[in-house]
Amino acid sequence: MTDITIIGNGNMARGIGTRAVAAGKSLQILGRDAEGAEALAQELGGDTLSGTTAEPPAGDIVVLALWFDAAKEVVSAYNDALAGKIIVDICNPVDTQTFDSLVVPADTSAAQEIAKLTGGDVVKAFNTTFAGTLMAGAVAGQPLDVFIAGDSADAKAKVAEFATAAGLRPLDVGGLRHARELEGIQLLAMGLSANPDNEFNWDTALKLIR
Amino acid sequence: MTDITIIGNGNMARGIGTRAVAAGKSLQILGRDAEGAEALAQELGGDTLSGTTAEPPAGDIVVLALWFDAAKEVVSAYNDALAGKIIVDICNPVDTQTFDSLVVPADTSAAQEIAKLTGGDVVKAFNTTFAGTLMAGAVAGQPLDVFIAGDSADAKAKVAEFATAAGLRPLDVGGLRHARELEGIQLLAMGLSANPDNEFNWDTALKLIR
Repeated sequence: MTDITIIGNGNMARGIGTRAVAAGKSLQILGRDAEGAEALAQELGGDTLSGTTAEPPAGDIVVLALWFDAAKEVVSAYNDALAGKIIVDICNPVDTQTFDSLVVPADTSAAQEIAKLTGGDVVKAFNTTFAGTLMAGAVAGQPLDVFIAGDSADAKAKVAEFATAAGLRPLDVGGLRHARELEGIQLLAMGLSANPDNEFNWDTALKLIR
Repeated sequence: MTDITIIGNGNMARGIGTRAVAAGKSLQILGRDAEGAEALAQELGGDTLSGTTAEPPAGDIVVLALWFDAAKEVVSAYNDALAGKIIVDICNPVDTQTFDSLVVPADTSAAQEIAKLTGGDVVKAFNTTFAGTLMAGAVAGQPLDVFIAGDSADAKAKVAEFATAAGLRPLDVGGLRHARELEGIQLLAMGLSANPDNEFNWDTALKLIR
């Protein structure tokens, strides 16, 4: 029994993996190459195993810590191995040449496109939290907000439980179509970080303060 | 010479007017009825005059503190009186029956639709700051973020100068088409406030913390 599988072994896998271990979750890191996944698993510590994407994900929650194109490929390749799983899409489908546009049409989102490829319950989450802020677990002394969109209330509740256990604040913003708005605002945050004229350097977090 | 005209005398006019007076700006409040505008001008104090939308706006910056339909009507009716003005659109074109959708098509925004109706320079700003937070000028001890989108760098700089003078933090997020993303994220914030199941009550502000 594994709580969470993270597919990918880059910075976002490190960030979400750090929070999963802090939450006491059992974790599986699956990378394209075994060495990278194993190195991250050892770095994270806790109850963490590693493997490659040649094997099926063991976790109830499967986090796609990948860019959009890779996420679509992995979900398509896994096919039935994701049935019944909660699939967390964290990606921001931005044009990385300009950081000024999304690469998905105006009436959809990366999360909705990924959902078309799988029978699992896709939940959008963790797309407004940069990797460094997830590793720290807080920004400016404040818990990170994790905006969550999805069509399965049960799947969203389980992702929210993970976020809460990890010391973060989950905010359910509605159905999966609202992934568009979450990807849209993070496009703007990424654009601000990509612009050398201001103070931001991929270290921000979007928060609803009151 | 008037710095800022606010069209409307509701809560958002009160919030932005409070910040304008705090910034030492000369202000004109134009309402549909003279009494409401005059009452707000007296409440705000400072260098504030009032009038009705039967007269042209005097300010270099004209803030449309109106819902989307009313903003379109006013801009159309003013026509040439807005030429050369900086027009600040603050509205959120939400379906107020559900707070779950925007009423503009997916590939546009209220700001872009308003821009089609006028020769002035339309700037999107102040749509992620609820009226009460503008009156307070800060939330949880932190200066409010004012996300700004527009196609005129000069117009955006002048709106940013106002925000800074008012004690707020302006963030230029790019061209006017990015109004879509700003309206989208505020749809989610409004949805959270409209939902009685959580802690929010039209008292939040969206902030990029670091």
